Amino acid sequence: MATQDLDESSITDAVLARMRRAKSARFKKVIGSLVRHLHDFAREVELTEAEWEYGIDFLTRTGQKCDDKRQEFILLSDTLGLSTLLTQMNHRSKGGETEQTVWGPFHRVKTPKFPLGANISEKVRGAPCFVNITIRDAKGKPVKGAIVDVWHSDDDGFYDVQHKAWNGAMRMRGIFNPDDEGRVWFRTILPTAYPVPTDGPVGELLKASARHPMRPAHMHFLVEAPGYDRLVTHVFNAGDEYLDSDAVFGVRKSLVRTYEKHKAGVAPDGTRMRKDFYTLEYDFVLRPVRRSKAR
Amino acid sequence: MATQDLDESSITDAVLARMRRAKSARFKKVIGSLVRHLHDFAREVELTEAEWEYGIDFLTRTGQKCDDKRQEFILLSDTLGLSTLLTQMNHRSKGGETEQTVWGPFHRVKTPKFPLGANISEKVRGAPCFVNITIRDAKGKPVKGAIVDVWHSDDDGFYDVQHKAWNGAMRMRGIFNPDDEGRVWFRTILPTAYPVPTDGPVGELLKASARHPMRPAHMHFLVEAPGYDRLVTHVFNAGDEYLDSDAVFGVRKSLVRTYEKHKAGVAPDGTRMRKDFYTLEYDFVLRPVRRSKAR
Repeated sequence: MATQDLDESSITDAVLARMRRAKSARFKKVIGSLVRHLHDFAREVELTEAEWEYGIDFLTRTGQKCDDKRQEFILLSDTLGLSTLLTQMNHRSKGGETEQTVWGPFHRVKTPKFPLGANISEKVRGAPCFVNITIRDAKGKPVKGAIVDVWHSDDDGFYDVQHKAWNGAMRMRGIFNPDDEGRVWFRTILPTAYPVPTDGPVGELLKASARHPMRPAHMHFLVEAPGYDRLVTHVFNAGDEYLDSDAVFGVRKSLVRTYEKHKAGVAPDGTRMRKDFYTLEYDFVLRPVRRSKAR
Repeated sequence: MATQDLDESSITDAVLARMRRAKSARFKKVIGSLVRHLHDFAREVELTEAEWEYGIDFLTRTGQKCDDKRQEFILLSDTLGLSTLLTQMNHRSKGGETEQTVWGPFHRVKTPKFPLGANISEKVRGAPCFVNITIRDAKGKPVKGAIVDVWHSDDDGFYDVQHKAWNGAMRMRGIFNPDDEGRVWFRTILPTAYPVPTDGPVGELLKASARHPMRPAHMHFLVEAPGYDRLVTHVFNAGDEYLDSDAVFGVRKSLVRTYEKHKAGVAPDGTRMRKDFYTLEYDFVLRPVRRSKAR
């Protein structure tokens, strides 16, 4: 097809035609849809050159804000609702398995392993919280070979990576192997509600949108086991004021639990506590891997 | 509106509702359309989590490839046809003014000024080329106060910024003020066809698309004058093999000219040339600023 003198309407088919020899049919489908929607968006709003320049600069700064401790593009996807859309579309549930929600930008790869019962928040200020969870299948059987990766914010609403003075130290995060009954228990501190980072381009977007940046308090859980779908989820704290306006649209009612408050006394692990403490219980249900579906 | 338990379809309206208090009506329109198209794209292709992760990584690397000499997001916009769409939509022409085309990623802000007749490619290897252009309005009157910014590639298809050994030196680029007749003339070298940079994410995209990265030979011209629309354009070399498959879809027939070849002899500026040389002539016509239209 002729590719000189393309106008604002003929350009779209010309771009798609240029990709006709791409080897992967899936690539062609995805990039084709992407180009159509990108062009339709620009035409629909009659995007100006000044707005385009702002967009180029916004995306550039978003990429440049990313490093090994910060993923601004994931945060952008989260705050635009794309992450929740993806999560729900890719994990359509019919059974009783635990619901998925967004990854968020604070997961770290080299999280340390801990023995069951360990304290993953030694020396971190905050209300003590004893967590007891189980990893089972839909029939209640313990899942063999599971790995449970936990991470959460501290009493001030920060993850370890956000404390520059901590110099990369791993805190409020850990990896566990369940016992033969599928149980995992550990000690940590009570997570609090917190703002997503607003010192980058996403903060700019939230401000222009007149949106608050808060997420309701939660713990992240990533559970993997051979033969089961990877489970990426949170457990939210019931009663949090931001449950109905989570900045990343991630709240599911089935994932909201009361973090129970207890007066000073004997904790679930037998420790005698001189101050008040919290307990959290949750039973996670994994879904067996589906057969791959044809595209 | 409730924002718990959002599914792959209800998420879109929930995101839009969250932005309802944004102050700028234009912002709401643009971001609203963007979110709808982004979500529709993801639903249409049933984007997988692995594809989303690739996309996040692609965008991150695109941002991180940008610096003061390289703008990979503009290159992405160019190669996806978005830049040409924007250019055509924002400069709908009815009269005889010169057509616009894409900026490209190689314009530099602090380009040096030259007197008329100067050589902007001193000591650069290549076929000598004498350029004679005029800057006029549609009635043929010289435009007062115009500034002409020129830049182009060398004999090997590289811009100055792509030569690491040149250490940031400005070559094959310059800024001129026309004389009272609207004329600009200078000496340079003949630009050649070249590949857009393929060592970044855009190169990855072109490869997956089975597309070549070549642009037909051209000179860039940016012309600004009080009371006239900014003109961003090229003059392409007639007969170039890539005129019909420009990697950035920028070719307009009205912008194609023969760079005339001449045997050794007297050049247009009176220089006696001992080797063959080229000449280029082009009359640029600026468009008066339109009254701003209501949105």
